[in-house]
Amino acid sequence: MDSYSKLHNSLDESGTMLCVGLDTDISKLPKGIPGNLSGMLEFNKLIIEATHDITAAYKINYAFYEQYGYEGFHVIEQTINLIPESKFIIADAKRGDIGNTSKSYAIACFEALKSDAITVNPYMGSDSVKPFLEYSDKMVFLLALTSNPGSNDFQRIKVNDEFVYQHVIKVSSNWAEYKNLGFVIGATHPEELKEIRQMIPSNPLLIPGVGTQGGDIDGVISANDGGVALINVSRDIIYAGSDVDFVDKVRKKAEFYKSRLKWKK
Amino acid sequence: MDSYSKLHNSLDESGTMLCVGLDTDISKLPKGIPGNLSGMLEFNKLIIEATHDITAAYKINYAFYEQYGYEGFHVIEQTINLIPESKFIIADAKRGDIGNTSKSYAIACFEALKSDAITVNPYMGSDSVKPFLEYSDKMVFLLALTSNPGSNDFQRIKVNDEFVYQHVIKVSSNWAEYKNLGFVIGATHPEELKEIRQMIPSNPLLIPGVGTQGGDIDGVISANDGGVALINVSRDIIYAGSDVDFVDKVRKKAEFYKSRLKWKK
Repeated sequence: MDSYSKLHNSLDESGTMLCVGLDTDISKLPKGIPGNLSGMLEFNKLIIEATHDITAAYKINYAFYEQYGYEGFHVIEQTINLIPESKFIIADAKRGDIGNTSKSYAIACFEALKSDAITVNPYMGSDSVKPFLEYSDKMVFLLALTSNPGSNDFQRIKVNDEFVYQHVIKVSSNWAEYKNLGFVIGATHPEELKEIRQMIPSNPLLIPGVGTQGGDIDGVISANDGGVALINVSRDIIYAGSDVDFVDKVRKKAEFYKSRLKWKK
Repeated sequence: MDSYSKLHNSLDESGTMLCVGLDTDISKLPKGIPGNLSGMLEFNKLIIEATHDITAAYKINYAFYEQYGYEGFHVIEQTINLIPESKFIIADAKRGDIGNTSKSYAIACFEALKSDAITVNPYMGSDSVKPFLEYSDKMVFLLALTSNPGSNDFQRIKVNDEFVYQHVIKVSSNWAEYKNLGFVIGATHPEELKEIRQMIPSNPLLIPGVGTQGGDIDGVISANDGGVALINVSRDIIYAGSDVDFVDKVRKKAEFYKSRLKWKK
């Protein structure tokens, strides 16, 4: 099954746009979990067991694993092997380089690390993104308007009568059909999200920034207007508890978000 | 010693701006080297032994290692351990994410993988770059105008009276002193390089795109105007030979580039 169909099935079967972000940090592991790489994997296993029937997808933030070197990178692979096959998996790696190098990054995420989608940075232009798009059964989420304050610095500067992020969406939309090319739009920008949805009603969106980052859920749902989207929550779910009962708290918090982030077929 | 001083010493001691790029790909290993990860490391060892007295720096392109999963990532760490301590090491990883995530990427490159500098993508703005700059004894090379054809898509669009890449340089130059913040400028843009050097005479530059990518050496040297810079050559050096005598050919090719890319104190 191609990844776009898998995304659709994941949304339909779970009934939610929730994506759980595995931003796992050894220093934040709850009581009872060893503060090492084995503990990191054990924690991810418990989080996946507690949430797999509540979420449509998982997003793995590579940085949190790479900070522990190759053994941390190994935990990414081990974690992916723990995720049920029906769940959509996003490599949140924000890669992008010249053509032959992007090709290697695509092999890394789609083949070595068996993900359905990868987040890609558009700054280096078409030949830096196309090697990812050439995996026509996989998906790219291209950074457009990110959730962080720095999104004002370059993404929101004006090029003629449009912002850079609008220009990125407009130009890159010609590089692939909507099934393969999604965009990252931060939940912290609901008004812009509304305009983007009018511009690209069919492309899937990955919307981070709800929860700890402060994005407003109702604003996001309304602005997304029923489009295909995954709304990511990381820290607010996985660190919902810090004591031995954390699994219950994680599950309750995920259920809260599931009910708020309903997906209607 | 801070990385900027190390860069300066590397340039002075080697007398060249040459940076050898370790874009090692198992499928391109020469005859006599096993086509697996051990062969990849053995190849890097031989390249480093053949070039360490000829080059100022090494640049490690993470993608080529990540494509083999965590065991490939391990080869990055093992390769770094083989590089003489006096040589400047660039993690060519093109990372960048929201603040807390960039912090983890900075730990990965500067602590876990012991590099002197990292290439960073500016698209996500100030808070995505600052966690790298907070390592005040390390260096960042921020992507400005890259060597690939796609650099025309977004880097060279006009914002008021300047290009996006010029705006990136202007804005980000305020984020750190010149010793910590360098820029990536592709060798394929000598005229723009000349203007950039006038704009930022002191910031170090990382200039890829000479060799296989076709950048003109004399044009680059003239445009750089004696500024602190590393000029990277990857494939044209490391794949100079495909037979059992490849080490000699690599050394000769590196010597050719060393003599063309002279550094004058």
